[in-house]
Amino acid sequence: MELYSGHINKLIDELSGLPGIGSKSAQRLAFHLINMPQNKVERLARTILDAKENVRYCKECFTLTDNEICPVCANTRRDHSTIMVVENARDLAAYEKTGKYEGIYHVLHGAISPMLGIGPNDIRLKELITRLEGDVSEVIIATNSSLEGETTAMYISKLIKPTGIKVTRIASGVPVGGDLEYIDEVTLLRALEGRTEI
Amino acid sequence: MELYSGHINKLIDELSGLPGIGSKSAQRLAFHLINMPQNKVERLARTILDAKENVRYCKECFTLTDNEICPVCANTRRDHSTIMVVENARDLAAYEKTGKYEGIYHVLHGAISPMLGIGPNDIRLKELITRLEGDVSEVIIATNSSLEGETTAMYISKLIKPTGIKVTRIASGVPVGGDLEYIDEVTLLRALEGRTEI
Repeated sequence: MELYSGHINKLIDELSGLPGIGSKSAQRLAFHLINMPQNKVERLARTILDAKENVRYCKECFTLTDNEICPVCANTRRDHSTIMVVENARDLAAYEKTGKYEGIYHVLHGAISPMLGIGPNDIRLKELITRLEGDVSEVIIATNSSLEGETTAMYISKLIKPTGIKVTRIASGVPVGGDLEYIDEVTLLRALEGRTEI
Repeated sequence: MELYSGHINKLIDELSGLPGIGSKSAQRLAFHLINMPQNKVERLARTILDAKENVRYCKECFTLTDNEICPVCANTRRDHSTIMVVENARDLAAYEKTGKYEGIYHVLHGAISPMLGIGPNDIRLKELITRLEGDVSEVIIATNSSLEGETTAMYISKLIKPTGIKVTRIASGVPVGGDLEYIDEVTLLRALEGRTEI
């Protein structure tokens, strides 16, 4: 059995190590890359290296940014006394896309997971506590609605409560436009528990 | 609204231009790349460039290879009088994986598609005809079972028939393990037409 050339096999191996890329997609990608014009391939490789080299953590909120301080933290028109805690930079981006949140963020880069052996010291939690020494009125915990996300939310809440700073948690429930018929029971019960008067 | 840093946005843009990678996967990939160790990122970039630089077309069958002649064409124990015509190198790999095909290949790098303006001169067809001047006893057409694949198969068959060389087409029908209930009508009719005595 003779399959691909050494260079192609190596490329397929490298690509299939990336998240969400199975062996079929890796093959398709590899052949696409080989058939791409030389200058485009070089540009892609350069962009990857440039991003890796130049992107760093914001000194305040620890999101990924090109500068010392990210644009959100650098924006004086935002409410610096409200901090939303998220698991990662993608979650930050999700809330930024709504265009409605006026406060700033804190990116944990993970969530507490006893299963995976990720403890409070493995995420940017100490850094959050340090930030609370400043003028903070509310910490909104927006970790995911997963086991890890909830564990992290509980842990942070217990940690902050004694300081007297208001700690809130984003609501879980039925997604807007969601059809009850297709929603899992846990979510349905959460939505029921979290019901508000109208 | 403040989203990602410039370098991350550029990387997401580049990645989402690749086939099968939507904007969500591109985001996930970008953050994964940025969080990867420096040496692994450099290895990935280098592997992409190396593959692009070193992979070329086999002088005989036009598959992609690291050498002048691909391992299949270079293998003297294979039957060089039987040529299987495939659309691309991935299809060649699919047949090689079966481990049962003893002949050699010819890779067209495409299929005739009047819709997309791809004519017989846009694929490696002339090169196939040139190869038939050698000692060839059978040409097996294994283009896809799509409109383009069938058109290409018909065209090649008409072109080769006058030379007296045997031209065959791989069978289409119900996939092994396929449940008739879920198979489309065209395939069912094909399977019926192609029925053989048992």
